[in-house]
Order: sequence, then C-alpha cells, then structure tokens
Amino acid sequence: MTTQEMTHGTAGQAVAGAGRPAGRPRSEKAEKAIIEATLDLIAEGMGVAELSIEAIASRAGVGKTTIYRRWSNKEDLVADSLATLKAPLPPVRGVSVREDLITLLAAMQNEAGQDRTRCLMNVAMSDADRYPRLMGRFVKVAVEPRRKAVRDVVQRGVDTGELRPDIDVDVALASLSGAMLWYTKWGNAELTDGLAERIVDQVLSGIASR
Amino acid sequence: MTTQEMTHGTAGQAVAGAGRPAGRPRSEKAEKAIIEATLDLIAEGMGVAELSIEAIASRAGVGKTTIYRRWSNKEDLVADSLATLKAPLPPVRGVSVREDLITLLAAMQNEAGQDRTRCLMNVAMSDADRYPRLMGRFVKVAVEPRRKAVRDVVQRGVDTGELRPDIDVDVALASLSGAMLWYTKWGNAELTDGLAERIVDQVLSGIASR
Repeated sequence: MTTQEMTHGTAGQAVAGAGRPAGRPRSEKAEKAIIEATLDLIAEGMGVAELSIEAIASRAGVGKTTIYRRWSNKEDLVADSLATLKAPLPPVRGVSVREDLITLLAAMQNEAGQDRTRCLMNVAMSDADRYPRLMGRFVKVAVEPRRKAVRDVVQRGVDTGELRPDIDVDVALASLSGAMLWYTKWGNAELTDGLAERIVDQVLSGIASR
Repeated sequence: MTTQEMTHGTAGQAVAGAGRPAGRPRSEKAEKAIIEATLDLIAEGMGVAELSIEAIASRAGVGKTTIYRRWSNKEDLVADSLATLKAPLPPVRGVSVREDLITLLAAMQNEAGQDRTRCLMNVAMSDADRYPRLMGRFVKVAVEPRRKAVRDVVQRGVDTGELRPDIDVDVALASLSGAMLWYTKWGNAELTDGLAERIVDQVLSGIASR
C-alpha cells in the first residue's frame, strides 16, 4: 500500500466511522446557511417531524447533497443547530468558588433571556421523547459541557476546603443550576437583578437556623 | 324582583362572568370522557395546533355542544386536562419543616416518574409561547398550588425560627423545587432513592465550610 492509498483509506474510514465528513467543511459559509435555515424553520413553528432535509436545503439555497456531506441525518443537524444558540461558556477566574459559580449562573440567566433561544429550546424539549438521538446529541454537545463547568467548580471547592468535604456534588449542581432553571422556566429571570448572586449565596450558606 | 328571579339572575351572571356553565356539570361521565379523549390525542402526538373540538368530540363520543357547554375554548380544555394528571397535593403534618419539605419534593419526584405525565407535560411546555392562555390557566390551576405549598412551609419555618429569619423565600423555593426539576428533567430521578431527603438536607445546611 502506498502512502497515498493509506491516506485515502484513513479518510474513508473517518467518514464511515463518524458519519460526518473528514477534514474541514468545504465551505464554512454553506454550513452557516444550513444551520440558520434549520433554526429559522423551527422558529417559524415547524416541528422536527415536519422538517425535511429538502426544506432546509431549499431555504439555505444549497443542494441536498451539500447537507448530507456534513450531517447524515436530520436529528444530528437539529441538535448541532440548537447547540449554536448557546453562548460560549464564560471563563472562570479560579480564585473564589463563590465568584466562579456566580459567573456561570449569570451566563445561564443571560442566555435564557434571549427570546429566540427560549422559543427554539421549547421546541427541542417538546420532542425529547420522540427524538432520543436529537436529545442525546444536544445533551452531549450543549448541556454536558455547561453541567461539567459548574460541577468542576463545586468539586474544586471541596478539594480546597472552601466547601464542606461531605457534600453531595450532584445535589449541589442540581440546587444551583436547578434554581436558575426554575426562574428561567417559570419566572422572569431576566428582570431579576443579582439573581445569580442571591442563589449562590443562599445555597452556600443554607437556610436552616444554626 | 322575586327571590326566584334573583336566584336566576345570579346564576346567569355566573355563567357570563366565568365563561363556564353554572352549577354542576350535567354529566360527570361526559366530562371525564372529554378529558380522556383530549389527553389521548395529545399522547398520540397531536399538537395543540392540530387538536380540534371536533376531533375531541368524536373521540369522546359526545357532541361538540357538550364540550362547549363546559369549555368555551380549546386552550382551557387542554389546560384543565393536563391539570388532572397532577397527583393530589400530599397533606403535610405541620410539625417539622424538614419533614414537610421532603413530603412535597418526594411527591414531585413520584409524579415526574410517570411516563404518560412526562410525555404530555413535554407537549404542553413546548407550546408555551404559542399558547399563552393555555399556559396561564395551567400555571394557575396546576402549578401555583404546588408552588404555594412549598413556599408556605418555608415561610412557616421562617416564622417559627426553624429557618433563618433573613433568607430569600423565593430563592429557597427555587433551590428546592428547581433541584428536583433538574433531576426529573435531565436525569433519572425515579431511580434515585432518597433524593428528596438529600436535596432538602443540603439546602437546609448549605454547602460552604463553616
């Protein structure tokens, strides 16, 4: 086997293995147009069931093969499109656990305040049971890294002694992020000043009398 | 005006004011059939947009006027149907704040474990932005009483001194119920033993080192 054959072989395997094209997309512009078209159609009220690669291609002004070259199926495309709505994770300073938790929760609050994001997330969540592949991919690319960021800060606090050594890290994550979810889902979190700080301080100190 | 006229007049006003029939429904059985038909159609994947009074009447085996006699519009009917999925609020003993919070959170966990409830709630939540009347009514009849039950226990704790006097009751509610929501939404809450107890104990004691 020549070097050239080996290279081709490897590239071919990567395509088959990941279900995605090897290497960089031929055109970042086309990828952006496809993602925007997908989000626009969902925002206009098209459910995942009705959404077709054909409709997306037509809206994006590309051929269907251009889409299939990047995504082997609709669910992965929707998941990746939704993931682009997430703001980048804010950097944490790593000095104070309290400060870093406020940074991460404030970013969560800020993101939820965006109308378009909220609308599209509602659509995605509604189809959770019907589209496990979509949800699985979305959780992996969009939810897990954010969950991990909060968990890492809590774990660091346990390690440094800023937090009690015997806490349940999972329950801490749920109380912190769940409290913000509670506000963004049911209340008007975007109107609530200093919400991240109030949540973090109260979860840190507890509510029981000493 | 005779007493009889006055009585009729009052009944008539009640109908006009509430948009619902006065007095008891003529047939509890018909009402039950209408609600079951509504839930079945949603469970089969019919979105609120597609759902029609006609389809519900046909499935329930009643005439459309039988439905309109009870609900003036589709959104109220869907909200009331979804509300029937909620288990009755468990009674709290009123002795210990910790014990009562565990009772309420355990009921929340138990409810979320029901597949049908979860599926139907997903559908309802997905349409939140498109159907504000539906959501408004659902929040009023199903969500608010549960929120109030937790809030009342927390407030009682503040009043009796079991909880710190300076806590933010809203944030406490969000940390407790939000933590359970976090598990029921993203995790496998039904598989997690003693979850309500773990959440309540950690929110009570806080996670910071003393």
